[in-house]
Amino acid sequence: MRFLKLTIAYHGGNYAGWQIQPNGNTVQAELESAWTQVTGEQARIVASGRTDAGVHALGQVCSLTTSSSLDTQTLCRALNAKLPDDIRTLNVQTAPVNFHAIRDSIAKTYRYQIQTGATFDLFQHDRCWFVPRSLEILEMTEAAGHLVGKHDFASFQASGAVTKTTVRTIYRLDIRQTNEREFNNIAITIRGDGFLYNMVRNIVGTLVEIGKGKRQPSWVLSIMEKNDRNFAGPTAPAHGLYLVDVEYEAFDDNR
Amino acid sequence: MRFLKLTIAYHGGNYAGWQIQPNGNTVQAELESAWTQVTGEQARIVASGRTDAGVHALGQVCSLTTSSSLDTQTLCRALNAKLPDDIRTLNVQTAPVNFHAIRDSIAKTYRYQIQTGATFDLFQHDRCWFVPRSLEILEMTEAAGHLVGKHDFASFQASGAVTKTTVRTIYRLDIRQTNEREFNNIAITIRGDGFLYNMVRNIVGTLVEIGKGKRQPSWVLSIMEKNDRNFAGPTAPAHGLYLVDVEYEAFDDNR
Repeated sequence: MRFLKLTIAYHGGNYAGWQIQPNGNTVQAELESAWTQVTGEQARIVASGRTDAGVHALGQVCSLTTSSSLDTQTLCRALNAKLPDDIRTLNVQTAPVNFHAIRDSIAKTYRYQIQTGATFDLFQHDRCWFVPRSLEILEMTEAAGHLVGKHDFASFQASGAVTKTTVRTIYRLDIRQTNEREFNNIAITIRGDGFLYNMVRNIVGTLVEIGKGKRQPSWVLSIMEKNDRNFAGPTAPAHGLYLVDVEYEAFDDNR
Repeated sequence: MRFLKLTIAYHGGNYAGWQIQPNGNTVQAELESAWTQVTGEQARIVASGRTDAGVHALGQVCSLTTSSSLDTQTLCRALNAKLPDDIRTLNVQTAPVNFHAIRDSIAKTYRYQIQTGATFDLFQHDRCWFVPRSLEILEMTEAAGHLVGKHDFASFQASGAVTKTTVRTIYRLDIRQTNEREFNNIAITIRGDGFLYNMVRNIVGTLVEIGKGKRQPSWVLSIMEKNDRNFAGPTAPAHGLYLVDVEYEAFDDNR
């Protein structure tokens, strides 16, 4: 029995999220089906976190165990031959005994893509959030600075979600503006030790309210004090969110 | 009664092509429905050419007549408010009396996007053709040179298509290789006075055979001599094709 680490990417637009469910296509269902076709095994594949419907991944990490003797490169190629075009296996690696994609993760990085201005690039319609006006990047950056560090992020957790603790550490939160093909793009990159349910999308929705000038950067401080989802900004839509990277102590080679 | 010129863009992935049909979503149906919602008029909107299912447009041109007194900028904004995100009105202009998008066009430009190499960028899966190997650009460019000019392109017309003449003039056919996010992209740009049904996709399919080294560049000369579709290469898939620009004498300002 071997433990494996799979790194995969997907466009979330055609899927009802990561996790297998009775109705709707899921990334997990596609991946487990491809695995069975390649190895003949029924495997349960665990991802570092369940991405929601529409959310994309550039570097989702999964763990599984196998009795297959196929080498990692062959597995990677064979999976891609079976997977649909909008899911790709980037890498298959041998993992330490008991490697578990959720339990062992020490940090995650997400990126959120926004397009601003009067018109939007329609070829981005399923991969970034269109905000039809300009945003104040400096104000958003100032607000982002208040969120970096170890805080109770209860106000940024989806209503009804249950977790042992709502304290998380954000290591990095930066906002970059780029111009691509005449369109204004804003990329918000956030790296932390873990994220509550909808936390990234709620932070982005809050920062956009500040970027619009509806609120001051210090608003985020008063939101955090409340520990209540009702005080934060709206949830940014799923289709602008990308899971970029998941980090593990056992695999520090790729940083 | 005013004559109008509409310039629109769309991602063809969700549509059964331009033209209204009994089954399946079409770009024309969406556009005519948006027009009715904006003006209250039942309009027949004519496009410069019917793009097939999956084919994209960066600058499709349409003509129509209207009794609406709304100004062109208001019409453009209002249409976009009603259209789905993957269809956008780029421009609405007043056109000369009797302006007709098909009859009056004097030139069209298409682009075909290919991605080559061992792996492909999954975020391009619905917008370029993946050819999982490298292609010889110099050989393809040499072959392209034979196609430029006024020729009988009967061999590059879809089987069964009927037209008055199969003679067309290609003004420009160039092939550029770019590297984007570590992936090899090839863009084939072709400008001509008009194109037969499937002509661009059949030319691209033929050039790719040459790029693979299966055929010599001079192959295109022998194909043209035959005047028979069976002698040309395969039809490249629809989802790599973009209608970039349509030109009219009455509107030479945007060139």
